[in-house]
Amino acid sequence: MNFLEEKILADGSIKQGNILKVDNFLNHQINIDIMRQIAYEFKRRFKGKEVTKILTIEASGIAIAVLLADLYDVPVVFAKKGETANSTDDKYISQAYSFTHKKMNSIFVSKPYMLADDKVLIVDDFLADGQAMSALIDIVHQAGGTVVGCGVAIEKGVQDGGRRLREQGYHVESIAIVDEMDYEKGTIRFR
Amino acid sequence: MNFLEEKILADGSIKQGNILKVDNFLNHQINIDIMRQIAYEFKRRFKGKEVTKILTIEASGIAIAVLLADLYDVPVVFAKKGETANSTDDKYISQAYSFTHKKMNSIFVSKPYMLADDKVLIVDDFLADGQAMSALIDIVHQAGGTVVGCGVAIEKGVQDGGRRLREQGYHVESIAIVDEMDYEKGTIRFR
Repeated sequence: MNFLEEKILADGSIKQGNILKVDNFLNHQINIDIMRQIAYEFKRRFKGKEVTKILTIEASGIAIAVLLADLYDVPVVFAKKGETANSTDDKYISQAYSFTHKKMNSIFVSKPYMLADDKVLIVDDFLADGQAMSALIDIVHQAGGTVVGCGVAIEKGVQDGGRRLREQGYHVESIAIVDEMDYEKGTIRFR
Repeated sequence: MNFLEEKILADGSIKQGNILKVDNFLNHQINIDIMRQIAYEFKRRFKGKEVTKILTIEASGIAIAVLLADLYDVPVVFAKKGETANSTDDKYISQAYSFTHKKMNSIFVSKPYMLADDKVLIVDDFLADGQAMSALIDIVHQAGGTVVGCGVAIEKGVQDGGRRLREQGYHVESIAIVDEMDYEKGTIRFR
């Protein structure tokens, strides 16, 4: 077991509805040591790849993205959610269905911040159905940029986002892949 | 002029309606070098203070908070916005009026992540009317914790959030205080 799998077993909990709750170290309270290790692990797994930008989506992806950008010394761009009416900037817009909120969400990046010569490493805390990740990939492609890889802290292997992205040829690296959770027994099986 | 004031003059722009646009380095695209310098500057200005937790609010405060937490080696907690219906956790809830969106926003922190013995450094990218900062302070106090200080990247000195917080006795450190912006001439005067 790696550091993140150990942390999930120690501090995560399973909630009804196939929900893995890790908000005491990953997405509400942030354990800085675990985050650093996640960033170092991505750097190791994508070794040798040229990266000019880290892309993520607000809010909880930002912590991982910033620590990784600190290692690569490149800018972070975080895609924003929701209405874009307030701004007159030109944007790349994509759609992601949220299974949590049961609706389509628009996500966008202002055009000057995603370029045709960008080599983009996309990171996020969770990958389940892959809706958000696919929307981020779409935004990179709209700009004519290249997706170097997709780094995910926790992938929910029972949902098929990760499988689909790998079939499409993307280099997806998930530090912990949860293949099975049992709410009654409170057990988690990693790939 | 310090590094952030220089960066604002070089890369920021003034939009109609007293809006300072810095989303090419601070709150959409993130310049990692500027963020590191902001974190180091906060560490220097709050030198000698004991800090057990960094508190911020999603989304753009997270980048500063995480780099600062990396220096202090303490956890970050980011307050969340919006409906809390999806979760059954006990929360500290406070209200902040958004002048941008012209409505009251609920912000919350789950109770286990803010404790009575916490010494909290609150950070955010912007301070204008101080609504978000006051709500964060309120959450620390609800938990019985201590506010060590408030670190802000850019304070809009024409709005009175900073003045009010200092009058209330809080140690507020803003790296750049914008006292005047002229949309027509495109000029910015710092305190």
